[in-house]
Amino acid sequence: MTTSNVPFGLAEYDRRLKKTRAAMAAAGLDALFVTDPSNQAWLTGYDGWSFYVHQGVILTMEGEPIWWGRYMDMMGGRRTCWMAHDNILGYGDHYIQSTVVHPMQDLAQQLASRGLVQARIGVEMENYYYSAKAHAVLAEELPNATLVDATALVNWQRLIKSDDEIGFIRKAARISEKVIHTAMDRAAPGVRKNDLVADVLHAGITGVDDDWGDYPAIVPLTPSGLDATAAHLTWNGAPMREGEATFFELSGCYRRYHAPICRTIFLGTPSDEMRRAEEAQIEGINAGLEAARAGNRTCDIANAFMQVIAKHGIKRTGRMGYPIGLSYPPDWGERTASIRSEDETELVPGMVFHFMPALWMDSWGLETTETILIRDTGAAEPLCNVERKLFVKG
Amino acid sequence: MTTSNVPFGLAEYDRRLKKTRAAMAAAGLDALFVTDPSNQAWLTGYDGWSFYVHQGVILTMEGEPIWWGRYMDMMGGRRTCWMAHDNILGYGDHYIQSTVVHPMQDLAQQLASRGLVQARIGVEMENYYYSAKAHAVLAEELPNATLVDATALVNWQRLIKSDDEIGFIRKAARISEKVIHTAMDRAAPGVRKNDLVADVLHAGITGVDDDWGDYPAIVPLTPSGLDATAAHLTWNGAPMREGEATFFELSGCYRRYHAPICRTIFLGTPSDEMRRAEEAQIEGINAGLEAARAGNRTCDIANAFMQVIAKHGIKRTGRMGYPIGLSYPPDWGERTASIRSEDETELVPGMVFHFMPALWMDSWGLETTETILIRDTGAAEPLCNVERKLFVKG
Repeated sequence: MTTSNVPFGLAEYDRRLKKTRAAMAAAGLDALFVTDPSNQAWLTGYDGWSFYVHQGVILTMEGEPIWWGRYMDMMGGRRTCWMAHDNILGYGDHYIQSTVVHPMQDLAQQLASRGLVQARIGVEMENYYYSAKAHAVLAEELPNATLVDATALVNWQRLIKSDDEIGFIRKAARISEKVIHTAMDRAAPGVRKNDLVADVLHAGITGVDDDWGDYPAIVPLTPSGLDATAAHLTWNGAPMREGEATFFELSGCYRRYHAPICRTIFLGTPSDEMRRAEEAQIEGINAGLEAARAGNRTCDIANAFMQVIAKHGIKRTGRMGYPIGLSYPPDWGERTASIRSEDETELVPGMVFHFMPALWMDSWGLETTETILIRDTGAAEPLCNVERKLFVKG
Repeated sequence: MTTSNVPFGLAEYDRRLKKTRAAMAAAGLDALFVTDPSNQAWLTGYDGWSFYVHQGVILTMEGEPIWWGRYMDMMGGRRTCWMAHDNILGYGDHYIQSTVVHPMQDLAQQLASRGLVQARIGVEMENYYYSAKAHAVLAEELPNATLVDATALVNWQRLIKSDDEIGFIRKAARISEKVIHTAMDRAAPGVRKNDLVADVLHAGITGVDDDWGDYPAIVPLTPSGLDATAAHLTWNGAPMREGEATFFELSGCYRRYHAPICRTIFLGTPSDEMRRAEEAQIEGINAGLEAARAGNRTCDIANAFMQVIAKHGIKRTGRMGYPIGLSYPPDWGERTASIRSEDETELVPGMVFHFMPALWMDSWGLETTETILIRDTGAAEPLCNVERKLFVKG
């Protein structure tokens, strides 16, 4: 049933179904309704910008998954999913943004017609695409079913990447190198930030050779000066200025797979304080990479970083990274493990993280990050090959 | 308290607060918790790509709104909101994607400390950024409060645009003209779709003169041939081919305001069937524009279009448009009124819609759309000046 648009072979999807069903069995689920677009794509191949309406994947313990969405998006399902067309379902357009009827009424009928009226059905309670209203309607329509919180059940299955997936992330990393170099090359006093971002996006989407660029799940974050004390500002039309640091948090994207990277550039002569922070940060990152090895835990990476920078007199707590891979807006993280001191997830070969121990200070920000692969032996491999330093243009 | 980053003057925000509070009073609300990023920005100016974690605006019947989000995003709030810094609140990083604690526990404390323990609090039950879990936790933490579904309460206040907002949308429309012309100019057999999209994005972000381009809330939708029978596919690295139609649904974006437009291009000689559909579609759009006048209803636009194309032997039902303006991913629509036969919203001067009566057929798609402004008198004004036709390259 594979169409030429599906990114992976059927064996890869079979592997994913088996893992997910084992987790469903462990959770005592009869069925799972998956709303996270990344999880949908991971299980079925579905790829389209239609997640702004209700849609999802129904997975039971047997047979193909079922993609369910808006009627007009069934065609997108047929073009991108690996399943038989019978397993692509659509609901009518009158459900869209109606205050009278709700798509979950249609979903409830679909579940009921599959014998799931009294089933234990997992739902992703904590997800952008499973609203409070959707849950309320589904619960009301299936009063004898048990809706179980299965948030991140599929996400956890995605944590260890297959070789095929690592291949995709390596392609994304080549594109990431290209975009970060574009940003560093273009940055100069007087250059409007939006013009620079336009070049960055152009570099990312043209891609590298045959590896065409897809849209990253987060747009470029490119704040300068005082704006760079904030973590998540995007850009504006102001010219870059002498005496300011700008960080560029960017990612190449290859068929929805990401390899985020951030570098900071200073136009002019950075202060001694910033230079000391740079030194601490890079030493800390090296310590983090050394700690990021199979058998260790996620907290070991964070603790290794914090110990080094504490030695340099800088305090930085909080989250310093997360797993990455296949993703859709608004987040390129996988939302499972975190690189932070209270997280004890064991590191296993094939895991890929965005390790991002940024320093957001009172009047400037210094962000240097790496996408890293946990290897069979030894320290983690940074997947992008970009000099790790504060870039400076005099 | 205005900072230089706020897009509008305080009088505009005051107007918005007054309208929203009148709607709150009509709904019997003591307070409103706003999670839709577009609503947050509309009320406070907040602008950052941080909506992938829980955040929102608390609005009571008096005083400034309060922006509440992740601690590290407080700095973004200070840089982009018009309110006093005391009214920008942050919760700790340990709440982020934790399975032990939830940010809504912090929000509940903030609401309680403002005397809202027993209040009637409006929440946006049907929103990407108000998850089923968030609602469950908030309800549990505030057992004596009444959480009322206030979905789209703020969105409805946004329906009629101020002159300032129309000014922004007109700037977005200039950028939309630039991007759609870029797509039409670049389309040719052998051109890789992603290379074309890279140029489109570049054109959009560089903007027009001083009007720098922001990121649109939807990425370019650019499917060709059979893929164009699906409404929401994005792009890939395949070269464009002779004998295929491609539609480009795009928007310029000026400071989060949109003016979407779509045109279709055929490489080669289109079939008579497609030419007849083109003729019907354009005649139908003209009829829709004539019906889109103050005092008429949204359904009148849809009905006018359908009557014309039915006369040409084409059946097209469903939704044909929605209000647009300020927006964040994943949707540039405002999610209130719809241009469809069952919607009877009265048209009022200052409303702006994306009128998009696309035809998705069995083996091709023809999409020609306009962003239209309801005027004081006469037919609606299409805000983009782009020839309305099926573009053809021989």
